[in-house]
Amino acid sequence: MGSKCIGIDIGGTSVKLGIFTVEGKLLEKWEVPTRKENNGSQILPDVAESIKKKLKEMGIEKDDVIGAGVGVPGPILPDGSVEVCVNLGWKNANPQEELSGLLDGMLVRSGNDANVAALGEMWQGGGMGYRDIVMVTLGTGVGGGVIIDEKIIAGRHGLAGEIGHIHVRDEETEYCNCGGRGCLEQVASATGIAREARRAMAASQEPSSMRRFGDHISAKNVLDCAKSGDALALEVTETVSRYLGLACAQIALTVDPEAFVIGGGVSRAGQFLIDRIQKYYDSYVAISANKGVLKLAKLGNDAGIFGAARLVLD
Amino acid sequence: MGSKCIGIDIGGTSVKLGIFTVEGKLLEKWEVPTRKENNGSQILPDVAESIKKKLKEMGIEKDDVIGAGVGVPGPILPDGSVEVCVNLGWKNANPQEELSGLLDGMLVRSGNDANVAALGEMWQGGGMGYRDIVMVTLGTGVGGGVIIDEKIIAGRHGLAGEIGHIHVRDEETEYCNCGGRGCLEQVASATGIAREARRAMAASQEPSSMRRFGDHISAKNVLDCAKSGDALALEVTETVSRYLGLACAQIALTVDPEAFVIGGGVSRAGQFLIDRIQKYYDSYVAISANKGVLKLAKLGNDAGIFGAARLVLD
Repeated sequence: MGSKCIGIDIGGTSVKLGIFTVEGKLLEKWEVPTRKENNGSQILPDVAESIKKKLKEMGIEKDDVIGAGVGVPGPILPDGSVEVCVNLGWKNANPQEELSGLLDGMLVRSGNDANVAALGEMWQGGGMGYRDIVMVTLGTGVGGGVIIDEKIIAGRHGLAGEIGHIHVRDEETEYCNCGGRGCLEQVASATGIAREARRAMAASQEPSSMRRFGDHISAKNVLDCAKSGDALALEVTETVSRYLGLACAQIALTVDPEAFVIGGGVSRAGQFLIDRIQKYYDSYVAISANKGVLKLAKLGNDAGIFGAARLVLD
Repeated sequence: MGSKCIGIDIGGTSVKLGIFTVEGKLLEKWEVPTRKENNGSQILPDVAESIKKKLKEMGIEKDDVIGAGVGVPGPILPDGSVEVCVNLGWKNANPQEELSGLLDGMLVRSGNDANVAALGEMWQGGGMGYRDIVMVTLGTGVGGGVIIDEKIIAGRHGLAGEIGHIHVRDEETEYCNCGGRGCLEQVASATGIAREARRAMAASQEPSSMRRFGDHISAKNVLDCAKSGDALALEVTETVSRYLGLACAQIALTVDPEAFVIGGGVSRAGQFLIDRIQKYYDSYVAISANKGVLKLAKLGNDAGIFGAARLVLD
């Protein structure tokens, strides 16, 4: 039994890698570019080569490594295979098998990147100490991951944790990328928050510190203005928080986790945002005061490598 | 290893019991009254005595019984204990331990009755052949149970599967029993459907075959009128189906089961209701056509004893 594990997080631009102790200490992290040419056929060979080199540099014997986990930006079937991964150009691949072959039979496990990040936050991040968490990632889109009993709930069709597409707003007029209307992502992603702010500015004559950003306003601008007390920005923040609180409530009444871990760029607004989500979450879980707590994520962009490494420890 | 298992479903009026083969064949079922006097202290002794008598009658040796599962109408903590069970008068009890003692050390496992019924439908009912199902029970209230990998997701605070209290309607003015407003149960339970019908009749001058039932209209009356083509009843059915489809969509985007199993008295409306729920469910899971199917429950009031018996087979 080895004392180290490897986490690999494959993104569209770069692959993040990390060497961890089995206790969850990150010993070394680095990146390699994601070479997408030839349907991404170079990605895993590049990863394998880079890992071998790094282990040699660090003087880590192969026998001391339990295995390597891989987070993939797309749906993973129960056998670890990938039908289509648009971001990488992969079709009908089994990255788990392939990488294991490239690493001389090392144990390799794979998972969807959002689910794997959730596992990472459970292991060493905002969800540390809990066995059941739901992660909500507020980035360009809204992603999520559901962990029950320290294991990813991947779902039977790759839809588990797709909480960005939970319908929350009936009166939405624009379509979401998914083809639906009124998805959480349309309001609570970085893109969604900026759009809410543009809508609020257009619909009102009220002076607002948000107006100086015009149509290029970002989610960060909106939340900064809200923190400074700007009334219109606070209104937008309330709307966003209400829908986030609603979605967390719906999830709590389905799987009842110990904690929700809120991450992604938007979550840098910190406790200011959590407090507002909490208010609505409480009101939408009226049945019980005893329910999962809301916490901030802690690992940032490293959540993926942490969670990937954790995949091989079961 | 025995070839039989016992299922016990404790209700407020009667306890249902069943003897099953480990393959899921119901050999015998019967009931005993639920004696609630003295804080329900007679319930488990009555159950134990009745089981011993029945096993003797049937000539089943104790060694041929793997164990007995119990469905309890209230939240069960991870160790099988019950803090409060209002319906039975229990406080700080551990029915699992107590019943095992009364049955000479037989293996006994307990679960919340709604969750246990879901497990029963997975084992031998509408969810047979699936490992991941969500049951939606449309009765006086709306209950539910989430089964992933053939196991109950009970939740950390007893809230998992409490899908009747998922918020679906912002404009609701009345309060739900849970203290919230706009819960699924307020629209889609038998009580809720009748109320929707009364509201629809009051808000319109339209002639309707529902009017002959006046304020005493039942959910069955509403659905029967809808099946006969009554426009107002069809409108109510659409509203109910829309919110049910919405809740199923939210759940699919959280745990992504293979199937939803719709049960309870209201589900006797059959495929007519399922088809309408399906339409909205599809529209609210716009992201993918590949998702959990909607099925009718099959076990009726026996779901509880089936699921309870299944509890001891892991």
